[in-house]
Amino acid sequence: STMDKDAFQDYEYPDLDPVPTKIEAEVIPPCDPTADDRLYHICITAISLVVMLILAILARRMKVGDRQKGLPGLLSPVNFLDHTQHKGLAVAVFGVLLCKLWGLIISPHPLPFTTDSQNKRENWVILGVFYYPALYYPLLACGTLHNKVGYVLGSLLSWTHFGVLVWQKIDCPKTPLIHKHYSLFSSLPQIACLAFLSFQYPLLLFKGLKGTEKNNATEDLSSSYYRDYVKKVFSKKKATKISSSSADKPKLPQRIIDAVKSYIYTPEDAFRFPLKLAISGVVSFITLYQVGLLLISAVVPSLQTARMGVDEDIANLLAGFKIMLSPDKHEVVRIVVYYMWCVEVCYISAMTLSALVNLAMLMRSMVLHRSNLKGLYRGDIYNVYNCQRSIRASRPALVCWMGYTSFTAAHIFIGMIIQTMVFFLCLLVAVFLIIIPVLHRQNLFLFQMLWSMWPFWLMILLAVLIQHITARFCFIKKTAGTRDLDNRGNLFLLTYLLFPVNVLIGVLLAVWRLVITALFNIVHMGRVDISLLNRNVEAFDPAYRCYAHYLKIEVSQSHPVMKAFCGMLLQSVGQDGKAGQRSRDAEEGIQLVQQEKKQHKVSSAKRARGHWQLLYTLVNNPSLVGTRKHFQRQTADSFLNGSLNRSTKDESKKEASLKFTVVKKE
Amino acid sequence: STMDKDAFQDYEYPDLDPVPTKIEAEVIPPCDPTADDRLYHICITAISLVVMLILAILARRMKVGDRQKGLPGLLSPVNFLDHTQHKGLAVAVFGVLLCKLWGLIISPHPLPFTTDSQNKRENWVILGVFYYPALYYPLLACGTLHNKVGYVLGSLLSWTHFGVLVWQKIDCPKTPLIHKHYSLFSSLPQIACLAFLSFQYPLLLFKGLKGTEKNNATEDLSSSYYRDYVKKVFSKKKATKISSSSADKPKLPQRIIDAVKSYIYTPEDAFRFPLKLAISGVVSFITLYQVGLLLISAVVPSLQTARMGVDEDIANLLAGFKIMLSPDKHEVVRIVVYYMWCVEVCYISAMTLSALVNLAMLMRSMVLHRSNLKGLYRGDIYNVYNCQRSIRASRPALVCWMGYTSFTAAHIFIGMIIQTMVFFLCLLVAVFLIIIPVLHRQNLFLFQMLWSMWPFWLMILLAVLIQHITARFCFIKKTAGTRDLDNRGNLFLLTYLLFPVNVLIGVLLAVWRLVITALFNIVHMGRVDISLLNRNVEAFDPAYRCYAHYLKIEVSQSHPVMKAFCGMLLQSVGQDGKAGQRSRDAEEGIQLVQQEKKQHKVSSAKRARGHWQLLYTLVNNPSLVGTRKHFQRQTADSFLNGSLNRSTKDESKKEASLKFTVVKKE
Repeated sequence: STMDKDAFQDYEYPDLDPVPTKIEAEVIPPCDPTADDRLYHICITAISLVVMLILAILARRMKVGDRQKGLPGLLSPVNFLDHTQHKGLAVAVFGVLLCKLWGLIISPHPLPFTTDSQNKRENWVILGVFYYPALYYPLLACGTLHNKVGYVLGSLLSWTHFGVLVWQKIDCPKTPLIHKHYSLFSSLPQIACLAFLSFQYPLLLFKGLKGTEKNNATEDLSSSYYRDYVKKVFSKKKATKISSSSADKPKLPQRIIDAVKSYIYTPEDAFRFPLKLAISGVVSFITLYQVGLLLISAVVPSLQTARMGVDEDIANLLAGFKIMLSPDKHEVVRIVVYYMWCVEVCYISAMTLSALVNLAMLMRSMVLHRSNLKGLYRGDIYNVYNCQRSIRASRPALVCWMGYTSFTAAHIFIGMIIQTMVFFLCLLVAVFLIIIPVLHRQNLFLFQMLWSMWPFWLMILLAVLIQHITARFCFIKKTAGTRDLDNRGNLFLLTYLLFPVNVLIGVLLAVWRLVITALFNIVHMGRVDISLLNRNVEAFDPAYRCYAHYLKIEVSQSHPVMKAFCGMLLQSVGQDGKAGQRSRDAEEGIQLVQQEKKQHKVSSAKRARGHWQLLYTLVNNPSLVGTRKHFQRQTADSFLNGSLNRSTKDESKKEASLKFTVVKKE
Repeated sequence: STMDKDAFQDYEYPDLDPVPTKIEAEVIPPCDPTADDRLYHICITAISLVVMLILAILARRMKVGDRQKGLPGLLSPVNFLDHTQHKGLAVAVFGVLLCKLWGLIISPHPLPFTTDSQNKRENWVILGVFYYPALYYPLLACGTLHNKVGYVLGSLLSWTHFGVLVWQKIDCPKTPLIHKHYSLFSSLPQIACLAFLSFQYPLLLFKGLKGTEKNNATEDLSSSYYRDYVKKVFSKKKATKISSSSADKPKLPQRIIDAVKSYIYTPEDAFRFPLKLAISGVVSFITLYQVGLLLISAVVPSLQTARMGVDEDIANLLAGFKIMLSPDKHEVVRIVVYYMWCVEVCYISAMTLSALVNLAMLMRSMVLHRSNLKGLYRGDIYNVYNCQRSIRASRPALVCWMGYTSFTAAHIFIGMIIQTMVFFLCLLVAVFLIIIPVLHRQNLFLFQMLWSMWPFWLMILLAVLIQHITARFCFIKKTAGTRDLDNRGNLFLLTYLLFPVNVLIGVLLAVWRLVITALFNIVHMGRVDISLLNRNVEAFDPAYRCYAHYLKIEVSQSHPVMKAFCGMLLQSVGQDGKAGQRSRDAEEGIQLVQQEKKQHKVSSAKRARGHWQLLYTLVNNPSLVGTRKHFQRQTADSFLNGSLNRSTKDESKKEASLKFTVVKKE
């Protein structure tokens, strides 16, 4: 690729000196923060252990007073199958954890307990993978007991974490790792999450002291959200559907607006995300930030250093490869520096583009999650999965459910790296083959090549035009409001004659197909909520398979209507004389009901009301009918229990079964 | 990549001399066939013109005797919307045309009329693209008139084409283009197609002379095929469906057998492919052969020449790049030759693999075409398209229909090239990073790297196992035949603790997703009958969009049941006294009916029979109901006409409308 000798004389590179002076790399002195990391970790581990002990003793004492919570509650500080809990604490702790994991993999010292650097680093990483969740566990557990002591401990713990981290960063803002400020910027999300916790625990304590913190509001089943959801379902009018079907084909501007709208998430009143999806969203966002930061700080400074370091030796080096950019060595340096600047701009643009694309995808995912969840609540299994599936807990579904949040983060990570690489290559090609030649009106290879092929392009264009025009005006006739073929003979003749031209058009189409498929898949690489494969083999896409399984567990275990039922049931049990024993958990509620079932005799009026509520709910939520299958011939009381039993069976029979119910009740 | 000094001492390369002697490239003398191409083309063009003139005169004379055919028939020698016609002639001519187009693009002399080589080559290519369809047109047209003179002319013409081509190839089997035998092998499909034509025309003539060629059999509407199809539809038992639903989940071996079976096309009695699909199949096959031949003959001989030409200079050259394979120069040559042989093997394997994959895809496509067509005949629009569409002629649909055959060929072409490249790269990586190191137990970089990471792999494995085992045995309980979650507290705890590990597992999953998506799309690149995109944006895949449109036209214009109706109608018209005027074409049939409609009075018994036939057919072919919409309130006679009018309207209303019909008739 020898270039034209005086091709670059009119290049202008305004931003830099023609021959930049060499700058020396900034030497970052090793920095030991006053709060030594090793000492800090030993102390905080001890403190966390003490906190957990205090919490355990507290839990044991509280258990005596209130039978439901206690040590088991302490061991499951976060209820992932919950829509109503205050999500802040869990989300913040997961954010901190993700940042720590990120540091673990990037940093040469995965854990502060070791002094020798690379030696057995992997083993320390593996240890760290299990150490950090345990370290931050008390931050979650302190909020579980809904107790003032817990809140005080949580406040102290989060203040310690937050204070030490900020102190360390102020002490040592620059580190030699990757880029001098990388470490600082990388810990920003962690600082934000810890700051949120440091603010949230005192707030909870304050509410607890004032007594405004209603235990009910933070509980799952007694929340008004589920009842609101049911009310919303009941009040929904069907009018919207009719209007959409009457306007069968919306116009193009409207369709574009709709498409844009489908990428913008607007909160809805009667819908809240399950906790796991909320965590996934935040975790994805933090991953996006961290990957973007890494991609920028790992590459751009070295590019800049290389650009600054270009001197006249480069001319000799290029001459060694027989590349002669210009006879003047100063000019050569200018050109090389300009080209490197272009590469840098391309890289930063590619990274920014990738980050923006992923942000848009994140928004779109949230819209799709909501519509998928609502669809499954309604029983639209076929629309969501494109096939009939049974919505119930199973081993693979549970494993996918457990890993879902993590998988989301990992896919964003891989997706962003690949997107940046691909966009970077595309931008490089565009800049060096199109933009720079056009700007300087030189080396227009691509345009010359395309221009020299003008008879070919003209032929293709004419062939396409002829086919469209004849199809429109000669071969289709409208009679009596219907369309039919006309002039079949000529149609067949044209088809035969244009066969070879169409092969050439087909080659262009195939290239276009290649480009669009690759682009679509690369852009959507980070999204787990759609399959990148053809609809018949969707399940072979591991990410989508995981998402589909995740939805199964989420819907089968936390259907809002079912939860509303559970809540009502527990309330009625409470009204019937056991008001002192408030049950706090769906599972406990079920067990309670099973114990109490034989002792209670539901009054006739109540039973009638129950019947009516059942019927109305079932008609509006056909997906629930399947859950009743095993209990159809039992009494109303056990039926209510049946609706709690969440094994959704064979959705394909739901309509028949529903009809049967309706007919029988009438 | 400097390699170990004595790393290759035990390499063995049995097939060749350690230092192969240089062989000189075979010089192929320019060869002028006795049948000069230029002269031949001028003559055959003239002959073809004469043949067309004779046919035109003949057609004009026949038109006097038999009103239906004539010049218009001559201008549309092939009815693409036909299932029953003898497909051989059209398929063979399209095959010849494709081979010619291929030669046009490859050869430096696109047309034989020009003497200067590269000068304005593109313009000659463009001319050739239109010249060849015209040149081979008489080969098709000779069979149109079903006349003995036509058959004689066709025989003579095809013999001439065939004879001259074979003569040329015997004269000059070797050409300097690409590879000495490339030209010969490349013309084999063309020779085969011409041989078929040379055999077919005399056969038709013979049948015509003996009178065994039934005019009816070659005609479309009066064929028994459509009636057989209708009978088959009527006699089909629903028992098969029930048995398949009872065995809900077949076992794994059965599912594998089913999957394999779905790739093997077995002809069915009551189903024939439309002509356009048959042509597409043959054209695809020829493209596959030509691309494979080109890929082999363009690359492998040069690789072999390069391998033969390796001498001790290569050692000096490599030393210049500081690559030291061995101190012994002989040894270096041996190693380099061995490596080049490996590259060659990889390339040939990749090409073979790609060809086999495309063959399998071709078979699978045929199976899918059949099931799609049958599905659309039945009215299963949603299953085929994954959305509701109106099956009727439209401008884009018609354009796609016209180009379908060509697009298929082009996609196979691009698909095979990309597949070969990708498979070649993958095989290279596999051979040089895995197979050669394993065979010689040296340079096991990859394995050493993987082995050094064993704690990581162990952790991943354990984490996955723990999740699966606990999910199976701890967190899912079976009660009363249903499955539900158990131990929610521990489940949530495990989910929290394994969050960081799952992120690492997620990265592996994301890489796997990348690999599987890329592989699937590359393997299916050549298939237009499936979309490579996600199910919601399927239509953005240009190839699939084209296929979907193609199916629309095919189904709306040549539904077998509709054709059976048309045939019956024409028969009854014929019986009613106009036996002399046999209508030969659906379109003409419709026009005939519209003319005769007012003159006829259908008897009461006939009308009753018509009603019954209508009802029975409609019940079994709900997709046809939509076509009646505009004619519901008219008489039975005009209804029959309505069933001919093929504008299929708004399939979503079909069930309601069907019920209405059934109820009214009862």
